[in-house]
Amino acid sequence: MAKLIDGVALAATVKQNVQCRVAELAAAGKKITLHAVLVGCTAAAEMYAQRQGESCRAVGIDYQLHTLPAEITQAQMADLLRGFNADKSVSGIMLNLPLPKHLDVTALQYLIDPRKDVEGVHPANIGYLVAGHTQIVPCTAIAAMELIESTGVELRGAEAVVVGASEIVGKPVSLLLSDRRATVTMCRSATKDLAMHCCRADILVAAVGKPGMIGPQHVKEGAVVIDVGINRITLPDGSKKTVGDVEFDAVREKAGYITPVPGGVGPMTVAMLLKNTLTCAELV
Amino acid sequence: MAKLIDGVALAATVKQNVQCRVAELAAAGKKITLHAVLVGCTAAAEMYAQRQGESCRAVGIDYQLHTLPAEITQAQMADLLRGFNADKSVSGIMLNLPLPKHLDVTALQYLIDPRKDVEGVHPANIGYLVAGHTQIVPCTAIAAMELIESTGVELRGAEAVVVGASEIVGKPVSLLLSDRRATVTMCRSATKDLAMHCCRADILVAAVGKPGMIGPQHVKEGAVVIDVGINRITLPDGSKKTVGDVEFDAVREKAGYITPVPGGVGPMTVAMLLKNTLTCAELV
Repeated sequence: MAKLIDGVALAATVKQNVQCRVAELAAAGKKITLHAVLVGCTAAAEMYAQRQGESCRAVGIDYQLHTLPAEITQAQMADLLRGFNADKSVSGIMLNLPLPKHLDVTALQYLIDPRKDVEGVHPANIGYLVAGHTQIVPCTAIAAMELIESTGVELRGAEAVVVGASEIVGKPVSLLLSDRRATVTMCRSATKDLAMHCCRADILVAAVGKPGMIGPQHVKEGAVVIDVGINRITLPDGSKKTVGDVEFDAVREKAGYITPVPGGVGPMTVAMLLKNTLTCAELV
Repeated sequence: MAKLIDGVALAATVKQNVQCRVAELAAAGKKITLHAVLVGCTAAAEMYAQRQGESCRAVGIDYQLHTLPAEITQAQMADLLRGFNADKSVSGIMLNLPLPKHLDVTALQYLIDPRKDVEGVHPANIGYLVAGHTQIVPCTAIAAMELIESTGVELRGAEAVVVGASEIVGKPVSLLLSDRRATVTMCRSATKDLAMHCCRADILVAAVGKPGMIGPQHVKEGAVVIDVGINRITLPDGSKKTVGDVEFDAVREKAGYITPVPGGVGPMTVAMLLKNTLTCAELV
């Protein structure tokens, strides 16, 4: 029976450390402010932003939400971001997704000063990671790494398999694992024999967004299983439930360590956003 | 018996295409100039730079070599590079390595405007690659990809194994192969069972810098083998020879396609430098 990797408890420790450092900086006269942008808000997005704000304030980071009309133009968005870049009182910038379809998300993300890019989405930050001069890593990727490292499992020479090759999770996690001297296999939807690869894995990271995609037949006895998926499914009785990419109950019997969903990567990702905001504030 | 992948012939085709486009741009009044920097020159480095110049001129690219004394300071080097960044007549910048030990190579590489970074060493260029918005890819990595693609082998769903995880070859080649929908395993010196991984590979890229590191026991029947290694060895009779990381004669009997050393990745890398210089000129 796998040990649970408690994302909530680990996140609490990270937040506590961030809070201490934020207090130290505040005592030295340095205030940290995260500016978040929300375009064309829905109830769900507003609730999410509200939670962001609460998480920030809980550790002493000032949170400023900019709610903008859905009709805002690319040029207006660009001006807003350039203004944040130039403003010394802005420690970090966060662009909440999704954006309305007429806006070019990538172009806007690339405009954010890499030193204020709390989400680690600017190419320079991804590039620093490849080059081994990491500044800011995408929150979810670094959250997955922290959870893996919390198990104390040896990474050097370990077989790691990452399922899903997104820019924001799969690729950066793969690069980080390789930097820790693991042998890393990057699987994706085109992979022909997924189970063969997964079964070799001492460390298995599932980051696809498909419920039940990883079953016990994909898992080596004793492996560390990190479930990055967050999927809302409808149960037979019509109620809704949040599940990951892993068949939790069945895999738990086989794995050595496993992250639950919810309560695994999710809370750690929020903690990493706060940690990244602190790092940004210390970079400039 | 493997088919030889003829890097010299493929490079000639690339150079011809570059030459045509350079001539078109010249006719439209746009001149392309590569500025190369050589610090504290040795005979070998000078000869290398001279060859660079010949390759450039052969396709109509103007080549300006800046030979600087070994005592130059970091600040002077930084000023020089900033000057190139600001100078519209400079299409591309190349910093020849190695530099004297008192200079911080990485800091200098990071100073180069990503749009003039013909070697693809700036983190932003590596980051664009991860994000799938490739501008400039490190020459050796893109050379390896071009050689793989020249075989016509299907990359989607193929098993690719990359041995060596350098920032300049192993990691970018892995990312490029993943973007082409291959399943990619990144091996490194800590990898426990290298032969097991290599034997699965439809595409095997050796980029370590150890002569004879890949033997027939590492190669699947019919695989595409790309040898990125360039090693100078001394033969029993005292003469010198350039070899790759692959035991060429033995592996050739088993592989489907193989690059020779010399005459494989090397000439293609030079061609890619010219192609990158053209790309840089068209970016600004």
